[in-house]
Amino acid sequence: MEHLDNFEAMKKQAFTFLLILISAITAAQDVDSAAIRKIFSYVLEEGAAYQRLDHLSNKIGGRVSGSPEAEKAVEWAKQTMQSDGIGKVYLQEVMVPHWVRNDKEIFTVYSKGKVYPISMCSLGNSIGTPQGGIRAGIINAGSFEELEQMDREKVKGKIIYFSKPMDQKHVMTFHAYGECGKFRYEGAIRAAKMGGIASVNRSLTLSFDDEPHTGAMGYQDSVTKVPGCAISVAGALKLNEILNDDPDAEAVIEMNCEMLPDKLSHNVIGEIKGTEHPEEIIVIGGHLDAWDKGDGAHDDGAGCVQAMELLHAFRNLGIQPKRTIRVVLFMNEENGLKGAAKYAEEAKAKNEKHIAAIESDAGGFTPDGFTYTCADSTKSEVLLKWRKLFEPYNIFIWNNSYGGADINKLKDQGTLCIGLLPDTQRYFDYHHSENDTFDKVNRRELHLGAASIISLAYLLSEYGVN
Amino acid sequence: MEHLDNFEAMKKQAFTFLLILISAITAAQDVDSAAIRKIFSYVLEEGAAYQRLDHLSNKIGGRVSGSPEAEKAVEWAKQTMQSDGIGKVYLQEVMVPHWVRNDKEIFTVYSKGKVYPISMCSLGNSIGTPQGGIRAGIINAGSFEELEQMDREKVKGKIIYFSKPMDQKHVMTFHAYGECGKFRYEGAIRAAKMGGIASVNRSLTLSFDDEPHTGAMGYQDSVTKVPGCAISVAGALKLNEILNDDPDAEAVIEMNCEMLPDKLSHNVIGEIKGTEHPEEIIVIGGHLDAWDKGDGAHDDGAGCVQAMELLHAFRNLGIQPKRTIRVVLFMNEENGLKGAAKYAEEAKAKNEKHIAAIESDAGGFTPDGFTYTCADSTKSEVLLKWRKLFEPYNIFIWNNSYGGADINKLKDQGTLCIGLLPDTQRYFDYHHSENDTFDKVNRRELHLGAASIISLAYLLSEYGVN
Repeated sequence: MEHLDNFEAMKKQAFTFLLILISAITAAQDVDSAAIRKIFSYVLEEGAAYQRLDHLSNKIGGRVSGSPEAEKAVEWAKQTMQSDGIGKVYLQEVMVPHWVRNDKEIFTVYSKGKVYPISMCSLGNSIGTPQGGIRAGIINAGSFEELEQMDREKVKGKIIYFSKPMDQKHVMTFHAYGECGKFRYEGAIRAAKMGGIASVNRSLTLSFDDEPHTGAMGYQDSVTKVPGCAISVAGALKLNEILNDDPDAEAVIEMNCEMLPDKLSHNVIGEIKGTEHPEEIIVIGGHLDAWDKGDGAHDDGAGCVQAMELLHAFRNLGIQPKRTIRVVLFMNEENGLKGAAKYAEEAKAKNEKHIAAIESDAGGFTPDGFTYTCADSTKSEVLLKWRKLFEPYNIFIWNNSYGGADINKLKDQGTLCIGLLPDTQRYFDYHHSENDTFDKVNRRELHLGAASIISLAYLLSEYGVN
Repeated sequence: MEHLDNFEAMKKQAFTFLLILISAITAAQDVDSAAIRKIFSYVLEEGAAYQRLDHLSNKIGGRVSGSPEAEKAVEWAKQTMQSDGIGKVYLQEVMVPHWVRNDKEIFTVYSKGKVYPISMCSLGNSIGTPQGGIRAGIINAGSFEELEQMDREKVKGKIIYFSKPMDQKHVMTFHAYGECGKFRYEGAIRAAKMGGIASVNRSLTLSFDDEPHTGAMGYQDSVTKVPGCAISVAGALKLNEILNDDPDAEAVIEMNCEMLPDKLSHNVIGEIKGTEHPEEIIVIGGHLDAWDKGDGAHDDGAGCVQAMELLHAFRNLGIQPKRTIRVVLFMNEENGLKGAAKYAEEAKAKNEKHIAAIESDAGGFTPDGFTYTCADSTKSEVLLKWRKLFEPYNIFIWNNSYGGADINKLKDQGTLCIGLLPDTQRYFDYHHSENDTFDKVNRRELHLGAASIISLAYLLSEYGVN
């Protein structure tokens, strides 16, 4: 009987323990869920991100690395973050490339006695053409594979045109961008390797307007540098038509963009020391530089003001994080990633322990989820425990893939790298073009994205990643 | 041994059966998933909805029930659906109210010798004021509860102002709309019951611009009819400020809107007969009437062209539904629901069996999910089996709540009523205002919504609801 009594007692104990455990877990989740609700409510009602983006976009505007606007943005971000009156705000020096577009962006097609002006823009990092431009026949190379199948003699001395459109069938538009990005980034290298004298790509967008979309391109040391540019989709459709009808059509391209010597610039950092584990650091950020065609509202003014909102919200909600949180506005994401490299380098040199990093660089649209990556996959499991907490905010996607360009270098240090994934449908309508302006941003969508990354940073600061 | 052998044989049989069952289920899901992928790919690449919406919005424009534009829309929709060359297209006659806004919408506040013009619009169904307008003091009643606490003598002869704003804290903006819609719909009744001479509500929007938002209001037979109007949010904020400073401020309201005799109008119906169960009917639709302030692109041109896309896509993909599908463009959703009532009435009279109805009337934004309701809850379970099929399209929400205003009357007949739930963040920025125009619609978002409802109609037509 004693044995049975013991068993019953044990059962009772186990049951009580289980009840305590369940109620402890439930209580923790209730506390977290209430904290996140508080963050969302505050940011939706009182968030400063939208007003701040208005200033960054409309008072400062496009801010290519090395430009006076980029330095104005640095100064503004520093002062704005200081005005929140929480933590320590400082600059981190970094040398950045200094490319300037200048004023000549001419692409004119001549066919059968007719003249067709086409909307074009120079690609970031490109060299210019000689003054007066270059005139040559145009090869519609389609894609790299098609170009490489071509007769080198036929291609030599020509303008190489990559006409492949982004694939409308993708639901996630970044996949379509991923497939065609190489035509912009590597086009000039591939063209030059085949003897081409310039590279032109169909703008990387899924819309059908007449705006050319810029973006970074690269050169290879061993390969002749030729100019690279992009034409609008309307221009590309026209050019396809012309070349179908007249393979001997020629184009004049004139660009006077140029790469100047590197310039001193800065990452802007706002840091709140953790109360319990100050040595464990969580980064939350976006990039402060932006292309000059629009005002960089979505790419990536949005990510900057969303990350800055953490200081604003924590201050006003009285949240003291247990682990250190750093808001980092990276310089030079667009054409060099020098700010990201510098940040990771110094973190390594100082032997800092970055447990996680969150990047917002996919536009200020309604948040759908998070993408993430970690060298140590056990660490990323912590995210999945928090899924339920985000469902009330229509955040359902947790995709083990990639965190983001600016935080990616921290991955080597074992950091859990997380990217905010907003709805992607409109992003490439605006991306790197004159269309990327403040009026394309919806306040609530921007603020929901801000609340999402702030809530995730809050959970990471409460619980760490172990 | 024999017994054991039998047992082994049975186990083998059971196992084989299980394998066949699993592979049958998997195969069915593979087939469905491939069919849905085909629908999405087709609509994203070749969908006609966006171009059609351009025509409906920009060539026809706002189309209040009874207006010449509404009849133009009926004719256009019929011809467009016929041009798809699939099924049978016909009109269903229905008498609709014929309210006209006319040209006077004046709201001017007088306070301490100063004059403040405020952006205002008449509410649909409202009577006008006497010529020259009415002039009276303004009572900031806040909400109905606050109004009812007030001294009747103080309120009598005054303009009753419902100043309560929509709550920014909601993630789902329809919840915020749900809480404040009554101030527009019932405001004039509540005001008149307390002796007020006009009702004005803060526009039902979450944005902070100067556009007034219209919408339907109602009267009660036993209550004096007083005019109802809405002022812009900027106007409401100004008015709050004025009344705080000067409770004796007065306003002049002049409106010359009027209700004319009912007019003959039409629902537009396109029907594809089912090949196996023609007697089981699935409705897919939106409403063709739209407010006159904008061009009704989101509300509900979007829903119309999305539903019409089913005919276009089925024709071009060669899909023959097993059950009958009816594309129904309802007339008069906005201020009477007469088209919906007529459709349900005739369905009942003809003893038609409507197994399901899908409505798209929440804007042409990225689809997030479906909301649904059914008198017989076992029927709605069929939807949950299909959840997985929609996840690749970022559709995660299946919410047992409400299908939609136009299909709601079919619910009494046991129909499974389903509403498309797109992202709701921007909807009330545009809803019922001058901002609801075609340029606010993104092609891909619109087409993703179309593909979602077409895919669901396809599954319903293949499998029914039992």
